[in-house]
Amino acid sequence: MLHPVVLSGGSGTRLWPLSRQNQPKQFLALMGDHSLFQETVLRAHRLPGAQAPVTVCSDDHRFMVGEQLQGVGVGSGGILLEPIARNTAPAIALAALHVASRDPDALMLVMPADHLIEDEVAFREAVATARQLAETGWLVTFGIRPDYAETGYGYILRGGELAGGGFQVERFVEKPDLATAERYVAAGTYAWNSGMFLFQAQRYLEELARHAPAIAAAARAAYTQSRSDLDFIRVDAQAFGASPSDSIDYAVMEKTDRAAVVPVTCGWSDIGSWSSLWSVAERDEDGNRHEGDVISVDTKGSLVRASERRMIATLGVEDLVVIDTADATLVARKDRVQDVKTIVDTLKAAGRTEHLFHRKVYRPWGSYDSIGVGERFQVKRIVVKPGAALSLQKHAHRAEHWIVVSGVAEVTCDERVFDLRENESTYIPLGSVHRLRNRGSEPVELIEVQSGTYLGEDDIVRLEDVYGRS
Amino acid sequence: MLHPVVLSGGSGTRLWPLSRQNQPKQFLALMGDHSLFQETVLRAHRLPGAQAPVTVCSDDHRFMVGEQLQGVGVGSGGILLEPIARNTAPAIALAALHVASRDPDALMLVMPADHLIEDEVAFREAVATARQLAETGWLVTFGIRPDYAETGYGYILRGGELAGGGFQVERFVEKPDLATAERYVAAGTYAWNSGMFLFQAQRYLEELARHAPAIAAAARAAYTQSRSDLDFIRVDAQAFGASPSDSIDYAVMEKTDRAAVVPVTCGWSDIGSWSSLWSVAERDEDGNRHEGDVISVDTKGSLVRASERRMIATLGVEDLVVIDTADATLVARKDRVQDVKTIVDTLKAAGRTEHLFHRKVYRPWGSYDSIGVGERFQVKRIVVKPGAALSLQKHAHRAEHWIVVSGVAEVTCDERVFDLRENESTYIPLGSVHRLRNRGSEPVELIEVQSGTYLGEDDIVRLEDVYGRS
Repeated sequence: MLHPVVLSGGSGTRLWPLSRQNQPKQFLALMGDHSLFQETVLRAHRLPGAQAPVTVCSDDHRFMVGEQLQGVGVGSGGILLEPIARNTAPAIALAALHVASRDPDALMLVMPADHLIEDEVAFREAVATARQLAETGWLVTFGIRPDYAETGYGYILRGGELAGGGFQVERFVEKPDLATAERYVAAGTYAWNSGMFLFQAQRYLEELARHAPAIAAAARAAYTQSRSDLDFIRVDAQAFGASPSDSIDYAVMEKTDRAAVVPVTCGWSDIGSWSSLWSVAERDEDGNRHEGDVISVDTKGSLVRASERRMIATLGVEDLVVIDTADATLVARKDRVQDVKTIVDTLKAAGRTEHLFHRKVYRPWGSYDSIGVGERFQVKRIVVKPGAALSLQKHAHRAEHWIVVSGVAEVTCDERVFDLRENESTYIPLGSVHRLRNRGSEPVELIEVQSGTYLGEDDIVRLEDVYGRS
Repeated sequence: MLHPVVLSGGSGTRLWPLSRQNQPKQFLALMGDHSLFQETVLRAHRLPGAQAPVTVCSDDHRFMVGEQLQGVGVGSGGILLEPIARNTAPAIALAALHVASRDPDALMLVMPADHLIEDEVAFREAVATARQLAETGWLVTFGIRPDYAETGYGYILRGGELAGGGFQVERFVEKPDLATAERYVAAGTYAWNSGMFLFQAQRYLEELARHAPAIAAAARAAYTQSRSDLDFIRVDAQAFGASPSDSIDYAVMEKTDRAAVVPVTCGWSDIGSWSSLWSVAERDEDGNRHEGDVISVDTKGSLVRASERRMIATLGVEDLVVIDTADATLVARKDRVQDVKTIVDTLKAAGRTEHLFHRKVYRPWGSYDSIGVGERFQVKRIVVKPGAALSLQKHAHRAEHWIVVSGVAEVTCDERVFDLRENESTYIPLGSVHRLRNRGSEPVELIEVQSGTYLGEDDIVRLEDVYGRS
């Protein structure tokens, strides 16, 4: 059986300001209604014999992963929470241990969560080929046939052809300079290293134990000592932290004599920058890609993305990227967007937060958005999902007014529990123990006006929480 | 005595999105704490013997003019409200009639409200020269010595020198083509037509009666039938509407044999576009002008203006204008900003409102800002100035929640009148007759949550209003 394993890493800097540390690229709906993570899960789900996907992600993103999985309704084979990032070799080891524990003959299809694949038929054929090889013990990597001399990827040189398709791997090569990349493309025997793999879970663990025993041991200890928390599998932090940090390429693929490559042309992109998003997106006759409320006059070759309730007008510009969000706007020359990192570094150095999270913040129970701030007050727009509840909590420095604008909220305020309907309001005095719950089938939307001397998110004592946060 | 007359016209399109129809360029603080209108008033106030300024403006802008005059504390010689725009000849006629009615020998210094003058000493010397000429009956225009071949202005060719300085006007010439403009600049005898004038009120009225009798008659009728309304002089709409629409240049200056020009070099600019604002602003070593929260990397020759609570990051761009506001952002090549009008026309044609007003709206009693909108609800942040009151009003389609976040509001709700203090809230049911008043000495700030099926600004019945709007 085929177990899709989705690696949901990524620091969220390259598509800033849309991507943030707490909402990296894979969770963004960049090309339609679904996020790249959801697209990846759905693509895997449509493969013959595919089991529910196993996800490996950071603890910080667990609720987003859970919610996005729920959103596509394909089930979940487990969400493994990495307590710390240790690169791909240990992450894949956790997933291998997990699927092997339930299916000793498991085949794993490992996919980064943030890649785009336009030609799913070609992808599926490549998976079928790779599957046959994996069943006979090969560790298969997918090699993207290069259509230009990209210097930002590693390359794979293929060796002898294998029965049933695919090739032995002759050599992995590092990111080349332009001249070398051009030579690789011309040769026709090199492919981009996509970061997607297919192999037996057991074979991977065996090869890992042989070539990187410290990683194998640490991953095994961490998985064995893991504990379940709601839908999540919390890997032991100390044991996992003891693992060396290394990629599957270095730790296993370059060392094993059982590495195979299946070359594929499937409209693959890792959307590593705003310009690569522009290049894969559909564009108008002036070469522009517009998202949202955009008015453009004499504009060419540009990617312009407006945010909710705001319009962007462009005039006489060419080859620009303009990305608007609630709290930050990026205006960059398209061929300079790889340096967005410089801006993120500037934000970090200045102790700012625009690289960490959006103004609208997602929580397991719904979301909030700080729509107005003044001295000693803040206004938030809060949405509580059907069936969800905020923690039972209190604040030391702020009182809150709640006005329900849609749905029916169940309010706990000290001893009282009562319903608050559309157009009704209540007051939560400073220090009161309170909770907001949505027992209905429609979202509850409310406006919260906070007042107090200190209005930070950390002024919260959680007395009880259904999401394990207290 | 010298009566400054400030012409506050302008449609507010050229500096969009910062300027809007209800808040044109002259009311914006583009270069410091004061608006161009306020700078104009203050500059005039500092002239020897200057009286309180007379303002001619549109009815729509009356409260903004009143407030901005109050803000600089130089008094007011009257605010003449044009019921309809009829160009400068009739507007100046109204002002002439107004000052002449109180001072038969009045000298008028006519100034557009939206010009920048950097060298006030040079300007003051030119005014002194012009004053002497005006006292002997000349109609004096100020000619800006051109420092480059601008094709967007009309030019004035000077004739014979007059005793005491200045020259007779030989000829007014239309906006030239580039070759002609270059010839004018090289000649040294041409100056830009600045739109500023100094003359006796009576002389202007006499010359107007001679050369444009229909305008003179209409203006006189309109002024005679005007009525006072608070601080404003409401000119009779029907009579004023009967006036031909014409500029002072065409109607009087080009025809009279008493036209004089005083050439001046005073760092004058009409800030007719974002690029001209950039060119007069102080810039950093990369030629950038930044306002607000801007992070710029490898950016050159650009004007970037961030708005409240939002940052703009620029990367690798050159010669751009980026102007952010609460509801619209402009990204334009600096040498194309004269075409901002195209965008405004697009907005007009689409029946939108981003060219008409800002999200934050100024009212005589203070301001409101729509900070959140959803289906059937809207959240506004409202500020009521000390001593101010909203109208006694009711709504047919919405109820309102008010939460005071600073100050003390006096609330009228049907029969009840009560104080609402910081962190207190109240509910105004649909149909209730209500009023909000600030009797204190500090601004009242409150959050209003409206709920209802229709939330437009026009759902208001004003039963009583201290600003004459009921």
